[in-house]
Amino acid sequence: MAMLSRLESEAAMNIAGIYPPITTPFNGDGDVDFDALRLNIGRHISTPVAGIVVLGTNGEAPLLTESEGDRVIEVAREAVPRDRMLIAGTGRDSTRSAIQAARRAAGLGVDAVLVRTPSSYRSQMNGGALIAHYDAIADGSPVPVILYNFTAATGVNLAPEIVARLADHPNIVGVKDSNGDTTQIAELVRTCSGRLSVLVGSAQTLYASLCIGACGGILAVACIAPHACARLAAFVSAGRHADALALQFRLLPLARCVTTRYGVPGLKVAMDAAGWIGGPPRPPLLRLGGEEAEEVRRATCDFFASEPQPSPLA
Amino acid sequence: MAMLSRLESEAAMNIAGIYPPITTPFNGDGDVDFDALRLNIGRHISTPVAGIVVLGTNGEAPLLTESEGDRVIEVAREAVPRDRMLIAGTGRDSTRSAIQAARRAAGLGVDAVLVRTPSSYRSQMNGGALIAHYDAIADGSPVPVILYNFTAATGVNLAPEIVARLADHPNIVGVKDSNGDTTQIAELVRTCSGRLSVLVGSAQTLYASLCIGACGGILAVACIAPHACARLAAFVSAGRHADALALQFRLLPLARCVTTRYGVPGLKVAMDAAGWIGGPPRPPLLRLGGEEAEEVRRATCDFFASEPQPSPLA
Amino acid sequence: MAMLSRLESEAAMNIAGIYPPITTPFNGDGDVDFDALRLNIGRHISTPVAGIVVLGTNGEAPLLTESEGDRVIEVAREAVPRDRMLIAGTGRDSTRSAIQAARRAAGLGVDAVLVRTPSSYRSQMNGGALIAHYDAIADGSPVPVILYNFTAATGVNLAPEIVARLADHPNIVGVKDSNGDTTQIAELVRTCSGRLSVLVGSAQTLYASLCIGACGGILAVACIAPHACARLAAFVSAGRHADALALQFRLLPLARCVTTRYGVPGLKVAMDAAGWIGGPPRPPLLRLGGEEAEEVRRATCDFFASEPQPSPLA
Amino acid sequence: MAMLSRLESEAAMNIAGIYPPITTPFNGDGDVDFDALRLNIGRHISTPVAGIVVLGTNGEAPLLTESEGDRVIEVAREAVPRDRMLIAGTGRDSTRSAIQAARRAAGLGVDAVLVRTPSSYRSQMNGGALIAHYDAIADGSPVPVILYNFTAATGVNLAPEIVARLADHPNIVGVKDSNGDTTQIAELVRTCSGRLSVLVGSAQTLYASLCIGACGGILAVACIAPHACARLAAFVSAGRHADALALQFRLLPLARCVTTRYGVPGLKVAMDAAGWIGGPPRPPLLRLGGEEAEEVRRATCDFFASEPQPSPLA
Repeated sequence: MAMLSRLESEAAMNIAGIYPPITTPFNGDGDVDFDALRLNIGRHISTPVAGIVVLGTNGEAPLLTESEGDRVIEVAREAVPRDRMLIAGTGRDSTRSAIQAARRAAGLGVDAVLVRTPSSYRSQMNGGALIAHYDAIADGSPVPVILYNFTAATGVNLAPEIVARLADHPNIVGVKDSNGDTTQIAELVRTCSGRLSVLVGSAQTLYASLCIGACGGILAVACIAPHACARLAAFVSAGRHADALALQFRLLPLARCVTTRYGVPGLKVAMDAAGWIGGPPRPPLLRLGGEEAEEVRRATCDFFASEPQPSPLA
Repeated sequence: MAMLSRLESEAAMNIAGIYPPITTPFNGDGDVDFDALRLNIGRHISTPVAGIVVLGTNGEAPLLTESEGDRVIEVAREAVPRDRMLIAGTGRDSTRSAIQAARRAAGLGVDAVLVRTPSSYRSQMNGGALIAHYDAIADGSPVPVILYNFTAATGVNLAPEIVARLADHPNIVGVKDSNGDTTQIAELVRTCSGRLSVLVGSAQTLYASLCIGACGGILAVACIAPHACARLAAFVSAGRHADALALQFRLLPLARCVTTRYGVPGLKVAMDAAGWIGGPPRPPLLRLGGEEAEEVRRATCDFFASEPQPSPLA
Repeated sequence: MAMLSRLESEAAMNIAGIYPPITTPFNGDGDVDFDALRLNIGRHISTPVAGIVVLGTNGEAPLLTESEGDRVIEVAREAVPRDRMLIAGTGRDSTRSAIQAARRAAGLGVDAVLVRTPSSYRSQMNGGALIAHYDAIADGSPVPVILYNFTAATGVNLAPEIVARLADHPNIVGVKDSNGDTTQIAELVRTCSGRLSVLVGSAQTLYASLCIGACGGILAVACIAPHACARLAAFVSAGRHADALALQFRLLPLARCVTTRYGVPGLKVAMDAAGWIGGPPRPPLLRLGGEEAEEVRRATCDFFASEPQPSPLA
Repeated sequence: MAMLSRLESEAAMNIAGIYPPITTPFNGDGDVDFDALRLNIGRHISTPVAGIVVLGTNGEAPLLTESEGDRVIEVAREAVPRDRMLIAGTGRDSTRSAIQAARRAAGLGVDAVLVRTPSSYRSQMNGGALIAHYDAIADGSPVPVILYNFTAATGVNLAPEIVARLADHPNIVGVKDSNGDTTQIAELVRTCSGRLSVLVGSAQTLYASLCIGACGGILAVACIAPHACARLAAFVSAGRHADALALQFRLLPLARCVTTRYGVPGLKVAMDAAGWIGGPPRPPLLRLGGEEAEEVRRATCDFFASEPQPSPLA
């Protein structure tokens, strides 16, 4: 409990920064390629990211078995030094499964858990249900909990008034909002600031979100352009708004390709194009091909052609 | 394979009829109450239903562990006689997990599997992804596959043109559509009739769906009013349309309470009110209380007060 | 007032049947072609339709000026004999304008007015606003009022509980629902039957809607296939369900082309293909061309190739 | 034409700033109260707004007759000095009516017209239809055209790629986007900057939108808090981001009350509470009452209680 209260009082500081929600590489048989995972993580931590997130949406967590997920955490824990945050996605549709997943992840050494809203019974997920769900998880989790809202993927919205209520729990330290709705981000900052950290999950609104008080981002595009994301955040901190805006505009086409437009299959193509290990997604996700893959590769090259510093792997 | 081709050639006949997608009872500790499950199944099979479905949405399958789900199938298999269909929900977001779940269910003796669309990466679930997903499952499943479409719950629509393509697979024998969209039901019947059985998943459109060619229904309200549902289907078969329509109108308020309005928590309250074992749902689903529960109880009593024959448990 | 009470008491009978919501033809200058309008109406009334609707969505009423609309009514009144119903769309976003439009139409001799929900301030159009709006119109209209609900076009839903309340007004005699949601049609019939006539506005659900108690339809496809629509309704009245269903299946592709798929531009191409005067729509609607127009023409030809009786104009 | 090319070349400069889309006051009989309109405009132009917009959504333009609208413009033209912009909403669902409305407004002396997307045939409003519509209006309008996008009200989205194409027209000088989607605002600025002015229509995203390059806003809340909106814009121009953000947070609850939460009825209550002439809306809009009106009044008082300078009317 000493650890928890320390973490809580320093929550905003601890969670601030840019985090890539890293992908899970698969080999030709469709199994998790743990060697490739290690290589990618090694490269991620050579960049100025504050930590990494495993088993998020981009990590294809909904397509992994429980034991595969546990092994991903183990490998990541070995590869991520203690001065960087290791966060694991542990959301489950059932409250009791979500608690168990958080406990298992904590036992494997993660620093915090990122818990998406349940989605199976979306029409029943009113404020009362969501508050009871997260309170129970926060009570049961040995490590701090970060709420995760992504309505386009779950059909559920974690409204600011619900988050404001959950912010009272000492073990809930942050919220990641991926809706791309800066009014909602602003309301989260306005009503919860000082009580929990607000992280943006949409790189297309990174600059705007940092302006209105988000303290960082968990961003798919940070899996390929971590330096740029970190630089944008540094520009905002330094009051260099014109530089931040110019970089945001350059990031827009690439960020769109690897999220709203082509999702994880697009992200993996972009990773391959940028020198990381992308590889195939796991079915039912299909490998992107043809003109769509070409569009992603072009957006990736266009982006790095204009970067003042080389691609991290050049 | 002999069994498969027999089933396939007679698919429409075999799957026709009314099926309750039965609930999973939980005890005070939140564990599955297998004794209650057995009691409920015993009563279900004393009614004129064609079989039962376990581990569907109403069975809170997304909230059960894999081992709990397996045990539910085992218990059901012991309780359901061989002349009734036992169907298990085995949909998973990952294709390989869905194949494994179908195999495990087949090993435990189910007659067919009901496979909902994946929902985690809905924006990527285009026709190509869905066809590859279901073809792989149908290839891998030892028992016939019934497609399951429920857009309000998954954010994905299994459009008639996709189903028409999947109907070419000899191991895909039916489709359950719960969207309540009779134009889509009509298109399914028009384009797939004779190749697969079309089952409706919305009791509010039961009569209309049977009129336009559906061969049966998998209906939450059949968990409490199986005789009425079966009688409505028999009326349609006998050309007694006025009787069918009158019964449909009487079913409407109850059917709404246990689906679109209050979901599984509403269904469990109605079961308790009608003499079945409902009990609490599993969190994050909350037990229905107060005026809402009262409304469900009233709708249940109103319905049975007007039934020409007593409640099955009276 | 004597007329009103007579109409009201016989409402269901008077409004029953099939109505084409006729199009407004335009000449090469984009002006209303009243001669073509007269020709089309002459043909419409040579078919077994119960009447015609002018100035509906298919009539491009939102694209006409008030004086053009008045002239359309005048021309129609001259062309429609007194033993057929002439109904005019008079919905407006403002309550006072809607009352004036109803009065003007009544002065020009229409038998009833069809009043779509207001749509400009949809988020404010709650039950109270809609009830006050329609009550005021029904008070002010010298002729009976038919409510018109089409959520896909207006963003507003006229829920059955609102309609049930409005059915108390003696001058509200019917409701047209174009949502294609047969559960809603069923609820309308269940709660309002005997008090107002329920008309379906979606030909894709015509058979199902008649089964569940609708007394007729106002259907775009009736602008090209009035005999078939009327025959389908007659089949249902005669209890010839198999014949009705077969005809419904044949109508589905054509009905889709001229509504949800290609709208008014599709309908006008189909009219041209079937020997009526379609012509161009008014901008911003664009004339359908290329493969899309070809698809509509093919659907039209396919439909008439299988008709047991010739196209009305052959 | 000389005027047009001058305006075009200086478009960004001319349209920058804060504009209230002023309301239309009605008297007890429901007629436009032109005296109250004059009083309100007199007060608006005593504040640091760049101009005013009449006949927008907040002006209840869809509920006015053509002649009422013309008279509103006349009154406004008399009251607004030539060094402030007078912009009139002239969007219509038909292209030819929209051209005529723009010509009439120009004849009455407006500086520019604001043209919302057509909404009646939303499913047909693809890029081609929207481009042809706006090109024709821009060709026909004697004064510069500002595009207006508000998907929640119209069901149509004017996507950045469409706007980028329309920006080629010399008489299209700006776009107002009210969707509250800062990714879309950013794309508009990125792809159209220097060619047309981007104005935000959602005060809840005012600060974020100015950060990413919008040059001003047409904001309901500017009808009651014009000084604060102008001050926020000045803070951003001066690089005083912390001050801008603090003011944005204070504006959030009030801005929400008068837009997404309670719309025009909420705005009119807030105007009454702040010393302007609000009065009743025109039916079907209902006057806000009870607890809802109280909530709006409280939000208004809370806002002004914390203003460093007095309410403009104090």
